[in-house]
Amino acid sequence: SANKKLLVLPGDGIGPEVMGEVRRVIDWMGRRRAASFDIEEGLVGGAAIEATGTPCPDSTVEAAMRADAVLFGSVGGPRWDKLPFEQRPELGILRLRKDLGLFANLRPAVVLDPLVDASSLKADVVRGLDIMIVRESTGGIYFGEPRGVHTGPDGKRTGIDTEVYTEDEIARVARVAFDLARKRRNKVTSTEKANVMQSGRLWRAVVSEVHQAEFPDVELEHMYADNAAMQLCSRPKQFDVILASNLFGDVLSDLAAALTGSLGMLPSATLGAVQPSGKRHALYEPIHGSAPDIAGRGVANPSAQMLSFAMLLRWSFGMEEDARMIEAAVEKVLAGGLRTADIMQPGLARVGTAVMGEAILREL
Amino acid sequence: SANKKLLVLPGDGIGPEVMGEVRRVIDWMGRRRAASFDIEEGLVGGAAIEATGTPCPDSTVEAAMRADAVLFGSVGGPRWDKLPFEQRPELGILRLRKDLGLFANLRPAVVLDPLVDASSLKADVVRGLDIMIVRESTGGIYFGEPRGVHTGPDGKRTGIDTEVYTEDEIARVARVAFDLARKRRNKVTSTEKANVMQSGRLWRAVVSEVHQAEFPDVELEHMYADNAAMQLCSRPKQFDVILASNLFGDVLSDLAAALTGSLGMLPSATLGAVQPSGKRHALYEPIHGSAPDIAGRGVANPSAQMLSFAMLLRWSFGMEEDARMIEAAVEKVLAGGLRTADIMQPGLARVGTAVMGEAILREL
Ligand SMILES: CC(C)[C@H](C(=O)O)[C@@H](O)C(=O)O
Ligand SMILES: CC(C)[C@H](C(=O)O)[C@@H](O)C(=O)O
Repeated sequence: SANKKLLVLPGDGIGPEVMGEVRRVIDWMGRRRAASFDIEEGLVGGAAIEATGTPCPDSTVEAAMRADAVLFGSVGGPRWDKLPFEQRPELGILRLRKDLGLFANLRPAVVLDPLVDASSLKADVVRGLDIMIVRESTGGIYFGEPRGVHTGPDGKRTGIDTEVYTEDEIARVARVAFDLARKRRNKVTSTEKANVMQSGRLWRAVVSEVHQAEFPDVELEHMYADNAAMQLCSRPKQFDVILASNLFGDVLSDLAAALTGSLGMLPSATLGAVQPSGKRHALYEPIHGSAPDIAGRGVANPSAQMLSFAMLLRWSFGMEEDARMIEAAVEKVLAGGLRTADIMQPGLARVGTAVMGEAILREL
Repeated sequence: SANKKLLVLPGDGIGPEVMGEVRRVIDWMGRRRAASFDIEEGLVGGAAIEATGTPCPDSTVEAAMRADAVLFGSVGGPRWDKLPFEQRPELGILRLRKDLGLFANLRPAVVLDPLVDASSLKADVVRGLDIMIVRESTGGIYFGEPRGVHTGPDGKRTGIDTEVYTEDEIARVARVAFDLARKRRNKVTSTEKANVMQSGRLWRAVVSEVHQAEFPDVELEHMYADNAAMQLCSRPKQFDVILASNLFGDVLSDLAAALTGSLGMLPSATLGAVQPSGKRHALYEPIHGSAPDIAGRGVANPSAQMLSFAMLLRWSFGMEEDARMIEAAVEKVLAGGLRTADIMQPGLARVGTAVMGEAILREL
């Protein structure tokens, strides 16, 4: 059978470093598990800007279209902060989401037992936390038109963005959330500002309709986004799956990640629609960004990138056993007391990217 | 000299209950401190809908225009959830903000020493926390046009909202933030999504311009709103003043309030421009909403409404000494071990609205 096609996009900052550790795991899998992939490596973000002048060259999009799954690092850094809006590294990931139709961004916020104390929240508030945020990722205010900064006849500037959602866009991402909830604790909390936003009003209506028609067995709760932020902070364990628009999902998923205190551990997946052929575009990336402040120093935590690869194996390649092996290896290394700087605790052993990667590999 | 004109708007839910306790303090001030006010009481929110069919009758707006300050309770409740968008209780507060030009919503998030343990965060993460959120409150996506839910020729619905900011709107609220910072720890963190939103790009540019031209002595930092949510959760004490748009400010200020674990303690102020006459419209309200789940049961915490009144005395009436007295009375009651249900801790004395109000009055 044809090899599975994997596109690897290390990007900027700590992306290349942590991706390097994943490459070692992939090599090992080829040797030991007879799992072999066709791996292509591509340019994205600042790295692509330097090489080609654009944050997401057509060749990268084409390679992503051909691939069975994309493993993404991270993009951005102060070096490109002064570039015009349309040329910034962040547009790399936005274009990939849009062009591949990756509308459902899945961001788990999980507190692993050995890391309970890494959280800024009290241990009993977060112990056992396991939330899945489903964020819409090809619509809303990130892409709506009209948008721009205009200068009026009086010389004054006005900035405009448009939040726009169609009922089909809302329904398809709602289905992903309900589907996931069925495999978890069967509860969806849908967030919006239906009290002040029209798109929020439609959001609430459509989610309710999809719920009634297709998922009446799942518990559905509507919550204003401001209240959701508050509840996430004060009683996070009330949540199972949280559904949100692109913008609210951006903020709420970062907040949920912060609750865990171990951002360097959190993977994410962004999925497209299942096509008639059965194929589904998918991109996997750590939640942490490019972390330019620690890039190139060999201290970044490779776990989130590793766990992103595990998610990829599970969801895109159906390799459940291999995914579990990697997850278990990461947990064992933590239980053994190794810590990168981001999750360091008194009394444990502080290590760098390579030692952490090596330890995970050894557990495998 | 003419009496100070105060408009009192209790609104819905626990609003009337907690406002009742403030009225006792006002009566006491009339008797003991020779401070007398012309007090008018008005209708807003669901209460106004019941009486007049609209959440903010013209008579309420006119009374607010005449008043030197507005003391607001809270609006909303499940009873009015099914009403059409334009008739909901929440529009009461939105119309007041807009018609009075109350563009700067100031929301302190403070952790009082006796309440450190009420927070879901670790004590050392929040002890001594003192953040001021300055939220723009008459612009952005709450009011931008076009907005609405439209049905296309194919019968499919689309929901639209418009985020729009002019440079003058951004500059004036930025000035409020910088001004406040000078009286505090001299640092402003301005939040937006300049990496994906055009209004965010303008926001960042204008805040930088105002900073350079008028407040170069204040430390200014720009932070993406998603990162701000994350940082608020993990290292909240890094912040002094946080500046945000209407929408991001809504979410971030609720999050900041939740950090303290004592929402029932937090007041807020919403200020207009200083007019040529020296007058400045201002509305003061607790951060907690109408809390319909506990309304009418006499268990709500009256402290936030009390502290809102203290803010009003300080900022609208220049009565610093009286403001301090009320604040000190609230702190003493807490130090004495009385707690309403929302901030209850093992070993302390749980009391209701009236006993808490009475205790504060006795301290005065
Ligand atoms: C890099 C940026 C454009 C992106 C976003 O806002 O979507 C990031 O914050 C994320 O959440 O993936
Ligand atoms: C009641 C509602 C319209 C309001 C808002 O979103 O502004 C509230 O959440 C607030 O923050 O004051």
